[in-house]
Amino acid sequence: MQSKIEKYRFTVEPFHVDFTGHLFLGVLGNHLLNAAGRHSHNRGWGIDQLNEVQYTWVLSRLSIELTEMPAQYEHVEVETWVESVMKLFTERNFLIRNADDGHIYGYARSIWAMIDVATRQPSNLLELKDGDILNYVIPADEKPCPIAKYRPARPASEPAVRTIDTYYSDVDINGHINSIKYIEHILDLFPREQFAGHHLCRFDIAYKAESYLGDTLTFICQAADDLTPRNPSTAYDIVIRKNVGAPEHPEGDSIIQAKVSWM
Amino acid sequence: MQSKIEKYRFTVEPFHVDFTGHLFLGVLGNHLLNAAGRHSHNRGWGIDQLNEVQYTWVLSRLSIELTEMPAQYEHVEVETWVESVMKLFTERNFLIRNADDGHIYGYARSIWAMIDVATRQPSNLLELKDGDILNYVIPADEKPCPIAKYRPARPASEPAVRTIDTYYSDVDINGHINSIKYIEHILDLFPREQFAGHHLCRFDIAYKAESYLGDTLTFICQAADDLTPRNPSTAYDIVIRKNVGAPEHPEGDSIIQAKVSWM
Repeated sequence: MQSKIEKYRFTVEPFHVDFTGHLFLGVLGNHLLNAAGRHSHNRGWGIDQLNEVQYTWVLSRLSIELTEMPAQYEHVEVETWVESVMKLFTERNFLIRNADDGHIYGYARSIWAMIDVATRQPSNLLELKDGDILNYVIPADEKPCPIAKYRPARPASEPAVRTIDTYYSDVDINGHINSIKYIEHILDLFPREQFAGHHLCRFDIAYKAESYLGDTLTFICQAADDLTPRNPSTAYDIVIRKNVGAPEHPEGDSIIQAKVSWM
Repeated sequence: MQSKIEKYRFTVEPFHVDFTGHLFLGVLGNHLLNAAGRHSHNRGWGIDQLNEVQYTWVLSRLSIELTEMPAQYEHVEVETWVESVMKLFTERNFLIRNADDGHIYGYARSIWAMIDVATRQPSNLLELKDGDILNYVIPADEKPCPIAKYRPARPASEPAVRTIDTYYSDVDINGHINSIKYIEHILDLFPREQFAGHHLCRFDIAYKAESYLGDTLTFICQAADDLTPRNPSTAYDIVIRKNVGAPEHPEGDSIIQAKVSWM
């Protein structure tokens, strides 16, 4: 029987590192999604296979927590597996380690829904393919993912710190602004000094609605007030609203919530 | 003896395709640079090896010509080799084919200089390592690259069609705006309809000077008037100037010239 864990390797390429010589978080996110795609495909649950039956996966939440970011030319191994399946959502986890010496950079958690391509409505995962997905679940006590579940950002309404237009390079094959580009645009809110002097230790993002080529994105950012002795990081809550100021709907729509935590 | 041709394979990943389902040109450019890096490294001329002796490669010009752009999930093989070496420049070519059925998507040409990291001055390639680089040259009659050499853009001065700020995600390990990001920003000047209705058949870019995180980039774009019966494409000449409007130097500096050709 197919193993429940997929392993996926990559090398940190020169054009995929930032000015500190460490992997861009967005590129890591891309690799995690590739690993997820391969895990699903190799078990008969890939988007290419599901599209034939009119379903597709939609990423709902992603949380990445790292004690260290891989550096240029390092070899990285990602493990991914399914921790649980509910009717409308599944939890997929990731372990990110150095492929040479085995030391662990960190972990990630994600939540996915399966939607019907025609109706855009979520589907019952437990009814598809006779519940086959349950064959791939590894409970948390068997394969732990020792980071907190998704930490929600507060739905801030101000201050708006930047508004950008969206262009050709922002958009994926479905015509949506791609999941990785939101991560890049969010990190671009921070100045050089933030990256030079701090470690980006955790990133949480919730994908709430789609945006499209030509939409404007307004970024609202405020310091989070959820610091505790157990959570000494400096965190920022970020909300992205699309098309703020449009005459018919001036407040726009909230499409992304994210929390960026620094040590 | 080491072969003179390096082969490099990649798969067109889901997040690396545009809304038409074809590879982003910037991602292809990244793969070409990776192939170049691997070719150099495997022959003792890698940046990591050269840095120990205080030299580094600088990309000066890149021209990519494609009859077709690879599509999602396709397997691509890049061949790269050195066509010539002059005192201060070397010409490196690329062939881009489908790794499964062998059909050729297109070719690319590039020109590189070797600079001294300390002085930023170009070095004499023929004197380094006792002229070892000549061992890797394949003349054009032995290994043809059937596309035109770099087609220069006219140094237009107007109209400026967009000015953007640069952020964290734009910058590479050297603190420079990265070569691939310029390609993305240039293509982002074109509307959706351009990509939906035309094939980007050729892209020429000359890297003339560096820019840095926080510089503004002003894009000047005009239709090229170099169309001939043998060249029926629609081309645009693009110049990027940095920091236009700065009080001490309001005209800014020209840092990039590019020509984008569509069929």
